[in-house]
Amino acid sequence: MDKKKTTIVLFSGEYDKAMAAYIIANGAAAYDHEVTIFHTFWGLNALRKDAQVPVKKTFMEKMFGKMMPRGADKMGLSKMNFAGMGPKMIKQVMKKHNAMPLPDLIEMAQEQGVNLVSCTMTMDLLGLQKEELLDGIEYAGVAAYLGEASDGNVNLFI
Amino acid sequence: MDKKKTTIVLFSGEYDKAMAAYIIANGAAAYDHEVTIFHTFWGLNALRKDAQVPVKKTFMEKMFGKMMPRGADKMGLSKMNFAGMGPKMIKQVMKKHNAMPLPDLIEMAQEQGVNLVSCTMTMDLLGLQKEELLDGIEYAGVAAYLGEASDGNVNLFI
Amino acid sequence: MDKKKTTIVLFSGEYDKAMAAYIIANGAAAYDHEVTIFHTFWGLNALRKDAQVPVKKTFMEKMFGKMMPRGADKMGLSKMNFAGMGPKMIKQVMKKHNAMPLPDLIEMAQEQGVNLVSCTMTMDLLGLQKEELLDGIEYAGVAAYLGEASDGNVNLFI
Repeated sequence: MDKKKTTIVLFSGEYDKAMAAYIIANGAAAYDHEVTIFHTFWGLNALRKDAQVPVKKTFMEKMFGKMMPRGADKMGLSKMNFAGMGPKMIKQVMKKHNAMPLPDLIEMAQEQGVNLVSCTMTMDLLGLQKEELLDGIEYAGVAAYLGEASDGNVNLFI
Repeated sequence: MDKKKTTIVLFSGEYDKAMAAYIIANGAAAYDHEVTIFHTFWGLNALRKDAQVPVKKTFMEKMFGKMMPRGADKMGLSKMNFAGMGPKMIKQVMKKHNAMPLPDLIEMAQEQGVNLVSCTMTMDLLGLQKEELLDGIEYAGVAAYLGEASDGNVNLFI
Repeated sequence: MDKKKTTIVLFSGEYDKAMAAYIIANGAAAYDHEVTIFHTFWGLNALRKDAQVPVKKTFMEKMFGKMMPRGADKMGLSKMNFAGMGPKMIKQVMKKHNAMPLPDLIEMAQEQGVNLVSCTMTMDLLGLQKEELLDGIEYAGVAAYLGEASDGNVNLFI
């Protein structure tokens, strides 16, 4: 029997939405689905390395680079962000309840063989380069996403 | 022939997004789909009772409890909220057009046998307890959601 | 063999989210899927003509009409909108990278035979009339959407 397939488009750049995406992805991988997360627009920020990587950029690309969160741990919340207080509160209760923080969920996904894909078109638009993103991810466009999704059992846009 | 299945993850805590979720769910139930709405993160607020329920909470849980809307009727809009003016305007035009307000849509869903599920993991994180949520709902985790969704004809993340 | 089907509910009224919806839709149409975008709530704004159309409206409908963006080109961003600066920056980098702006993506979708559907229930609520929306689109309700989606290979809510 063919494996079940789950594909997620992660468009949003918020900590809580990325958490939901990665919890579903890790769950599906545990149930032996073939899982792909296609990161596009603000969702690319989840894949950024937290260190600054020296790459050549135009003025506009530098501005985008500065304004967007550098990596999963720096993302804000979609609700009750309170200038950064919200994420701190959420992370504190997560720690208390032994829930995995986002960077750990991403690492777990990579270990479980979830395909983490970065959308090359929006990388271009936002001026993000491969060196700035996590190692071991893939690069593709909308055609590759549609190829996976059209055979998918669960397809979500987050 | 097997029944068609529709599953919706309701992640968002806004009145308009919850309305969209419940209108699709009620429509699908009317067409004899087996329908599940899995409420997680801010979507849990749609299931809160509007009265305050006396339960024991930590300081942090009390804070979350106060900051989040208590029940469907108190949720804001995702656009043009204008500090609460938006929801009032929308509710006024809905009344004029005989459109069902959200609390009625939720009641209708329960009467039509839509499975309303509350995500136990985020209940823990946000400090919400069963006594605070509507009667007649179910409690489950991501595994149960994936079980339903992987056989689903229509799967949405809202 | 039957054609594959892709359906998208476009609920959001932001330039970037509408772009994502139309890029996926155009991609799917290019791969010979039968594609439907069902515009509801704030997503209806993508279908508004940019010129003001003289129609009779109540006071409330006039207010909604004024507060919502008139057409795809006037929509804001879901992140980093900066009171309208964000969309200008994005459009500038899109031009540099030869990426299609949203109004062109919509035109392309119409040329490729993507079904652009306007949700009649939310048109009523927001006081939008057929004369104010693009020519050549369809009008339908949630039942028509579910009919398409329940046979769909890719179903997304954006």
